Amino acid sequence: MSSPRPVFQPLYLQVKRYLMEAVSAGEWLADESLPSEYTLADRFQVSQGTVRKALDALVAEGLLLRRQGVGTFVAAWPDEWQWSALCASGDDGLAAPERVEPELLSCGRGVASERASDMLQLRRNAPVRLVRRQLRVAGRMVGYEESVLDAERFDRLEPRLIKQYGGQMYRLYAAEFGVRVGGVQEWFVAAPADEEPWLRFPEHSPLLRVMRRACDLEGLPVEWRRMWLDSRLVQYRRL
Amino acid sequence: MSSPRPVFQPLYLQVKRYLMEAVSAGEWLADESLPSEYTLADRFQVSQGTVRKALDALVAEGLLLRRQGVGTFVAAWPDEWQWSALCASGDDGLAAPERVEPELLSCGRGVASERASDMLQLRRNAPVRLVRRQLRVAGRMVGYEESVLDAERFDRLEPRLIKQYGGQMYRLYAAEFGVRVGGVQEWFVAAPADEEPWLRFPEHSPLLRVMRRACDLEGLPVEWRRMWLDSRLVQYRRL
Repeated sequence: MSSPRPVFQPLYLQVKRYLMEAVSAGEWLADESLPSEYTLADRFQVSQGTVRKALDALVAEGLLLRRQGVGTFVAAWPDEWQWSALCASGDDGLAAPERVEPELLSCGRGVASERASDMLQLRRNAPVRLVRRQLRVAGRMVGYEESVLDAERFDRLEPRLIKQYGGQMYRLYAAEFGVRVGGVQEWFVAAPADEEPWLRFPEHSPLLRVMRRACDLEGLPVEWRRMWLDSRLVQYRRL
Repeated sequence: MSSPRPVFQPLYLQVKRYLMEAVSAGEWLADESLPSEYTLADRFQVSQGTVRKALDALVAEGLLLRRQGVGTFVAAWPDEWQWSALCASGDDGLAAPERVEPELLSCGRGVASERASDMLQLRRNAPVRLVRRQLRVAGRMVGYEESVLDAERFDRLEPRLIKQYGGQMYRLYAAEFGVRVGGVQEWFVAAPADEEPWLRFPEHSPLLRVMRRACDLEGLPVEWRRMWLDSRLVQYRRL
């Protein structure tokens, strides 16, 4: 048998990975400034050029921000709506997106469905946390959503925490569980007429079902979410 | 009245804009290599460093590609499915996306609807070209789409051209009209039960309506497209 080919990783990529993990683990929080390049170079025993290259890469990926003459900062927490928005349905879609107000309905326990376990890379019937919310726009109910999370990883999740973070789940995951959402994939279907989410919409509502997988900075799955939206009231916009 | 503030643009941004326009205008085609930095610097009478900075920015934006030791190339034409894909509906969505085969139904003339004129920044009832196609996956009809284009800009568009480019519209726009699609925005709704696209789906099909605006490299609208997809057969995936 042939031996595996060795993998060489440039120094700056090692520094980059370290910084990424440190941010994920909350060593520096959102909007907090990182130590100077000089300090980091001294700490890692590498050249300032190597530190700069690692920081450049993280700035390019959006994890860090540079403020001219001030320093390098951890970018604000990922927002659940940074990749998408809801617009009023009659609207031409070019108006400012609506502010989405999620209202917590329940935060319980369950087992992973076939699709949820595929999406979260869990075994079938693995214990999960289920967060169900109602979505409102300008006070009007426009949809529901259910988030599925690995129960082992998010065991401490409870309604009090969700309220504490004003319903900003991705922010909560980062601050309380050291898991930073770095991107999402989405799937779209029209829900069949006989599909019944766990709460009722007015009869004959055309329902859009959005399925969204959020992954961490390494591309590993964090959350599997399904949203049902009444298309008579809102359109889902992907930027 | 105060006089307008003068706008200074760094040299490299001027070079960048020139190169962008030259690529848009087809001076260099997809997969074609650009002249060397030295040659470009000589041609524009700027330093090689300035040329490199302009090329770096265009590489970062995805318009150009660098191949180590070979040179700088124009990235392949934008693909209509590079931002999205169709997956079989029963599927967990993680399988390889399906190959979409568009079949031309008509390529006619019309006037811009209210929404199309908003989206394309045309006046209401402006003359437009309408391209209607049927979408197939593995030989099976899964949906329809209609593309709306400014008739003045795309006057020469005809079925022969669409066939010549194998139905790759974005490639056609770039090669024949010098208009390169640089990004898309999308809106999603479930089509109401009584909505009737211009061709019939089987009764009671839950229809997903995807609305997509394609913009050029400057962010100006190029095409407004609506797709109707039978959610019993396919899911629309956004990457």
